[in-house]
Amino acid sequence: MERLLAVDWGTSSLRGALLDSQGRVIEERSFARGILTVAPGEFATVFEACFAKWAGAAGVFCLISGMAGSKQGWLEAPYCACPAGFDEVASQLAWVEAGRIAIVPGLSCEHDGIPDVMRGEETQVLGALQLLGLRDGLMVLPGTHSKWVQVRAGKIKGFSTFMTGEFYALLRQHSLLARSLPETDGEVDWAAFDEGVAAALRGAGLLQTAFSVRTLSLFGRMAADRLPSYLSGLVIGEEIRTQALPPGEQVVLIGSELLTGRYERALAQRQALVRRVGAEASWRGLWALAQTLHPRREAR
Amino acid sequence: MERLLAVDWGTSSLRGALLDSQGRVIEERSFARGILTVAPGEFATVFEACFAKWAGAAGVFCLISGMAGSKQGWLEAPYCACPAGFDEVASQLAWVEAGRIAIVPGLSCEHDGIPDVMRGEETQVLGALQLLGLRDGLMVLPGTHSKWVQVRAGKIKGFSTFMTGEFYALLRQHSLLARSLPETDGEVDWAAFDEGVAAALRGAGLLQTAFSVRTLSLFGRMAADRLPSYLSGLVIGEEIRTQALPPGEQVVLIGSELLTGRYERALAQRQALVRRVGAEASWRGLWALAQTLHPRREAR
Repeated sequence: MERLLAVDWGTSSLRGALLDSQGRVIEERSFARGILTVAPGEFATVFEACFAKWAGAAGVFCLISGMAGSKQGWLEAPYCACPAGFDEVASQLAWVEAGRIAIVPGLSCEHDGIPDVMRGEETQVLGALQLLGLRDGLMVLPGTHSKWVQVRAGKIKGFSTFMTGEFYALLRQHSLLARSLPETDGEVDWAAFDEGVAAALRGAGLLQTAFSVRTLSLFGRMAADRLPSYLSGLVIGEEIRTQALPPGEQVVLIGSELLTGRYERALAQRQALVRRVGAEASWRGLWALAQTLHPRREAR
Repeated sequence: MERLLAVDWGTSSLRGALLDSQGRVIEERSFARGILTVAPGEFATVFEACFAKWAGAAGVFCLISGMAGSKQGWLEAPYCACPAGFDEVASQLAWVEAGRIAIVPGLSCEHDGIPDVMRGEETQVLGALQLLGLRDGLMVLPGTHSKWVQVRAGKIKGFSTFMTGEFYALLRQHSLLARSLPETDGEVDWAAFDEGVAAALRGAGLLQTAFSVRTLSLFGRMAADRLPSYLSGLVIGEEIRTQALPPGEQVVLIGSELLTGRYERALAQRQALVRRVGAEASWRGLWALAQTLHPRREAR
């Protein structure tokens, strides 16, 4: 493999990067063509339209992670059961075109008889492990559906999903609380955010603490333009409240600066030690997986 | 006072009952004229349109509880601070028309520096205390915003709001989970409901347990038509999970049979002892408050 076209094809966006034989990013592109925008049978067309220039070149292998491997995606890549590391994931790729285009499987695990799933985050975790030189740890991927991932001896042992981003959006847009909030969020008010986190951490659950957005507004205790940040702190704080986090626990946050910044700030109230990794985790994960198929040539 | 026109004017409905001098219901009426449907300045018109026949008669006094006393209502009745019982509430009525029409104030309390409020439920609690002959207890009023109310020596000492009904509606209608659910709820599937309650009780929070609706569906572990009942169990179970309820604790459930039935079933998993009171709690509460103003004539 001379080059890798690494693709993260999620629910709402499609991102790609062309990597050289050393795994360095040559160029990146992103498109508003998440799988929700693609009709069944149209995935190949959309892929070619977005990446023909890169994917068509000789010696380019293409590896795709994310919801493209779901039932509603391009080609279903069945979930790989935890514990799973590089070898388990790499051996269960779904091949769209033999030797040229493959999709990374998502992972599944089970706790108390209830399944949990991820698609795309496994690749970010594997990438972050390589970038940080880790084989053990707690990785957190904030988002619409946040993932808390336990890694042991280089394998993903298990994980839990929290619908934090989605709850924020539901409360922000569709609940009674929305009437107390301004139209748009504006800049983060960190003091209000911290108050939200603190209220969540000393509370027993979001069903109750969420109502404080209404009453703080009703009694004029918090200005309307501070309430979105307070609500964001409440939901992120609620996610963190339910974690077993001994003081001093190391947490690796993976994702956009916007989100990992909020989580780092919230985790400080639990005395967690945080390291952050950005979008490069996906590219590194895809590149590392590709290496197990096409051992990298030595640099000349 | 010969007769009382008792009115419960809430956010989404307007209900009234004509009571005789002994507090017995002569006739009931309800209208889809919650305060959200009434333009400012139009409350008197709507009231007369709905209740002219009753309210216009000689010797009829009218007492109104609920959101009609809010800022967005007919006339603001400022919150009465807890602890509050019959005397405190009755002495802070807001008079729409001296001696003829009054509005019952809501209650406020505060925990950890955060206010909480109710409007209408205080009247139901006061009514239930009379109906059951209680002066102490834990009263639960399930709904869009459920209230858990502590009563000591005949006074409401404090309470907490849980946005349970609203969270159910948000998840049911607007979340990713909605895609796994059928269009309408259908009959309650009690076994699925119980599974939801159990999952919530052993879980750490709704942000996580809610995702099980998606994964149980994804892995074909629960049929789509059972999932609404399971989700209902999850949110009600989450509300109950966060309560201090020693086994054998007595709980008075106040509200519609539909809702109190679900709560009784869920509370059984916490070994609570339940008594249920229906819509008559409002009428009895309003009648009892009216008595403090117009001592009831002795029956002839």
